Amino acid sequence: MTDTLKDFRSICRKIICIGRNYSEHAKELGNVVPTQPIIFMKPSTALVIEPNDIKIPSEWDELHHEVELGVIIDKTCQNVSKEEAEENIGGYCLALDMTSRKIQDDLKKQGHPWLLSKGFDTSCPCGDFIEKNQIDLSSVNLWLNVNENIKQNGHTCDMIFSVPDLIVFISKYITLEHGDLILTGTPSGVGPVKRGDQITAGINGKDDFKYTMKFNVV
Amino acid sequence: MTDTLKDFRSICRKIICIGRNYSEHAKELGNVVPTQPIIFMKPSTALVIEPNDIKIPSEWDELHHEVELGVIIDKTCQNVSKEEAEENIGGYCLALDMTSRKIQDDLKKQGHPWLLSKGFDTSCPCGDFIEKNQIDLSSVNLWLNVNENIKQNGHTCDMIFSVPDLIVFISKYITLEHGDLILTGTPSGVGPVKRGDQITAGINGKDDFKYTMKFNVV
Ligand SMILES: [Mg+2]
Ligand SMILES: [Mg+2]
Ligand SMILES: [Mg+2]
Repeated sequence: MTDTLKDFRSICRKIICIGRNYSEHAKELGNVVPTQPIIFMKPSTALVIEPNDIKIPSEWDELHHEVELGVIIDKTCQNVSKEEAEENIGGYCLALDMTSRKIQDDLKKQGHPWLLSKGFDTSCPCGDFIEKNQIDLSSVNLWLNVNENIKQNGHTCDMIFSVPDLIVFISKYITLEHGDLILTGTPSGVGPVKRGDQITAGINGKDDFKYTMKFNVV
Repeated sequence: MTDTLKDFRSICRKIICIGRNYSEHAKELGNVVPTQPIIFMKPSTALVIEPNDIKIPSEWDELHHEVELGVIIDKTCQNVSKEEAEENIGGYCLALDMTSRKIQDDLKKQGHPWLLSKGFDTSCPCGDFIEKNQIDLSSVNLWLNVNENIKQNGHTCDMIFSVPDLIVFISKYITLEHGDLILTGTPSGVGPVKRGDQITAGINGKDDFKYTMKFNVV
């Protein structure tokens, strides 16, 4: 792992996101549990870091929060085997997949791509680089509060497709590069935020490792 | 316009593509003509240049060709007005939006995002930088041959949303950066290519400006 990965938010060229990777979340939106990963993209311009705000695009009223484990790719890789998948991981981060659920529902009904609902500026609030040894992929707790009320509180052990499975699937089609970010899906409890709300989110890793971040919604 | 834009294929951080921007093409796929631009993304790893090949992912049989005018962004911009839109253009290129229509049709039926069908490695064959003054946006001819048989032959004057309209719409939600590429949609005549086929595509601009490119499908 090279030092520049600490800077992944400036070198990141693509953000690949996974839809419905926790079955409780698939069910809460009335969706079928998928049989292969559902992948979509956010541009790197979607990234926003503290102390900046999450900005709801001007004609929209609200966004949904989705708290997710972010995986940061170290080595450029294609067609990775399940055994090699973890070697390509450089580190992790806490990230949010901010979504206009209303726009996404409209797009889904029409069979249209999701970019508008998921890729707008500040749709990917993102924390600092987390060292690989702080995270045991089988037991990470992710939580999110809105205005101090707990909304999401999930565990990566409930993922449908594991992180190695996701790297295998994506890299079969799309070359992953140094600094790329994979958002691995959200546990249940997604819901709306409006202008004036404050989101606090956290991740609990190995050996009492904890990271939290806070964003105002404007 | 800075010199580094000639290198847009290495500095490009995002490729924003427009679906159904020519009404004849919307009709040939049995789609409604859209009332606002349909936007999706390809990662920069989708770019491929001559003399490299278009690679069909291993379990797929064929891809569809879509010849498109690529717009290369010069200045970083947000919320651009229609009057300012053209100033943000640094140049153009000829590009193909290679698509697995079968996968895309499945994704559309399920309301899923399009990335898998449109974002795989080599799904964006792309020509050299074309100077801004070689192109009059209102009259560009785009054509594409498969194995020397003409398949697509269209005109940018038939676009539903003009290039300035597209820049206004995208930049309202997504910041456009130096080197970003916009693929502006394809005229009618899309169809399959299989391994062993050869695609030749061309663009005819102002004052007899012509550019052609050739890719083998493997
Ligand atoms: Mg998500
Ligand atoms: Mg998409
Ligand atoms: Mg296209």
